[in-house]
Amino acid sequence: MIQNQIINGIKAGDTLALAKGITLVESQKPEHRKQAFELVSALYDHRKDSIRLGITGIPGVGKSTFIESLGTHITKQGLRLAVLAIDPSSSRTAGSILGDKTRMEELSRNEMAFIRPSPSSGTLGGVSARTRESMLMCEAAGYDVILIETVGVGQSETEVINITDTFIMLGMPGTGDELQGIKRGIMETADLIVINKADGDNVTPAKRAKSQIEMALHLFPAAESDWGPKVMLASGLHGNGVKECWNNLVDRQSTINNNGWLLQNRKRQQSRAFQRLAELSIYEQMMHQLNHQKELSLIQAELQSGEINEFEATLSLLQLIS
Amino acid sequence: MIQNQIINGIKAGDTLALAKGITLVESQKPEHRKQAFELVSALYDHRKDSIRLGITGIPGVGKSTFIESLGTHITKQGLRLAVLAIDPSSSRTAGSILGDKTRMEELSRNEMAFIRPSPSSGTLGGVSARTRESMLMCEAAGYDVILIETVGVGQSETEVINITDTFIMLGMPGTGDELQGIKRGIMETADLIVINKADGDNVTPAKRAKSQIEMALHLFPAAESDWGPKVMLASGLHGNGVKECWNNLVDRQSTINNNGWLLQNRKRQQSRAFQRLAELSIYEQMMHQLNHQKELSLIQAELQSGEINEFEATLSLLQLIS
Repeated sequence: MIQNQIINGIKAGDTLALAKGITLVESQKPEHRKQAFELVSALYDHRKDSIRLGITGIPGVGKSTFIESLGTHITKQGLRLAVLAIDPSSSRTAGSILGDKTRMEELSRNEMAFIRPSPSSGTLGGVSARTRESMLMCEAAGYDVILIETVGVGQSETEVINITDTFIMLGMPGTGDELQGIKRGIMETADLIVINKADGDNVTPAKRAKSQIEMALHLFPAAESDWGPKVMLASGLHGNGVKECWNNLVDRQSTINNNGWLLQNRKRQQSRAFQRLAELSIYEQMMHQLNHQKELSLIQAELQSGEINEFEATLSLLQLIS
Repeated sequence: MIQNQIINGIKAGDTLALAKGITLVESQKPEHRKQAFELVSALYDHRKDSIRLGITGIPGVGKSTFIESLGTHITKQGLRLAVLAIDPSSSRTAGSILGDKTRMEELSRNEMAFIRPSPSSGTLGGVSARTRESMLMCEAAGYDVILIETVGVGQSETEVINITDTFIMLGMPGTGDELQGIKRGIMETADLIVINKADGDNVTPAKRAKSQIEMALHLFPAAESDWGPKVMLASGLHGNGVKECWNNLVDRQSTINNNGWLLQNRKRQQSRAFQRLAELSIYEQMMHQLNHQKELSLIQAELQSGEINEFEATLSLLQLIS
């Protein structure tokens, strides 16, 4: 499919074209980078004003089931939903646990939904640049809600916060008062904390965890966005709380739209994205132009073994391009 | 002073040479970057195995007084202390609030202590790269403890966490149960939370805040380093709790040394530092070599005004170097 066909296809909401576009921006081949920039740029002004959500939760908290339930509810409102799943454990060749479409069986058969797993390993500069580009293309394809999912390990949460408007954290009741499945440094940055699996015997511990977390959050200063963090109970399996979760998200979207935070935050994200694009694409271009990937690998190996320090490594690299 | 004199001076612990070395790594002139790398590299294997501390607290929590008190206690143990203060509000020309030496009067007259404010505005890629280089030079100059101070605004805390072993957060009692002066997203990442100004009428609210925070922290999973977070009361003004604070820091250092976390974390920090050095120095070198700073400013202005999007901006930039 040539570039123009992809562009027109995406504008028309064709999922095959969208998938091809995402494959292009995800390509690790340096010669594809410029094409990817041109593609996203051509679609930039045709984007829908979407709701950009990030969601995190480690394996075991019932994230797939919750997303399936929330996603189905969203599409029932007549809204088109794109789920971009970042899986740091996978690589392009090894296949991805998130790639398993049976993970969200109902949603993957839903014509209003588009699900796309993105392997992140080996991506220079983290996942956010490429995922951001995929997100912008989903907006150009007319999706109303973009949900970016991470498995809650590594640095991916911070990166997702840097490209979305709202960050949802999924946990589950623990054996005591605590919330299971949360990672240090995440709870404070969440806009919405959902205690999942709040069903059956779990209801009491879930309620206890909720009030504990609310007390803890009340020690922190108010969020800059002026909405949240809110804590709520849900059961992805039985669908309880899913509607309320969506209502909260809509309420937040309206607040941050009206108070100007959304625009301000997106502007900030755009500047940041450009700075990273500039640094990384020049770096990639230089490495590519000079065909120095081999030398770079050698330098990295010497650094890893302690043979050279990071400054000697940088000097060697600069030597290559001068 | 020529490069060799600076190197030998720093190795001998000469503070004038150290100050000149820091000025070199802080220089915004692209032609100084390579010299800075060579300087730090030459000193790299002469470094002391120092304790690297980060400390944050917004203006008003009594940070200077606390650092003065803690710093004096540290030097009384026969240890040499370097304080590197990052002030994002200042610029090279405008002078710095942290540059005011009278801020830590006693410490600035102490021969065992070295205080250096670092203006951070306008530094490409944030403060951490340059501050990390200054820190390594302080270690080569024989300082036992490096304390990196931030004023608790912007992204500087995250950056400081990326270059230190231990992160201290300073707050003060509020009017209710809360801790004043903390920022969202920080508390969870702190290893030691010090409630300062716990004196006089403040003692009762400070104790209340302490137990509230301890309860909140107990909801989070254990720190990867296996030490902390701990919460303690102190009065920088009267010196209460300062000794206990230092004992805690020594205890943590011994724990993370023995369990291997320190080494593992520093290795991770080194890889990260190299990746950033590589990206940024190639970017800077290209911008400099081609003398394109003017074009870059123009591109940034067009992006800011919305005339072009970030991908068009990146394509224009790539056009310049190809």
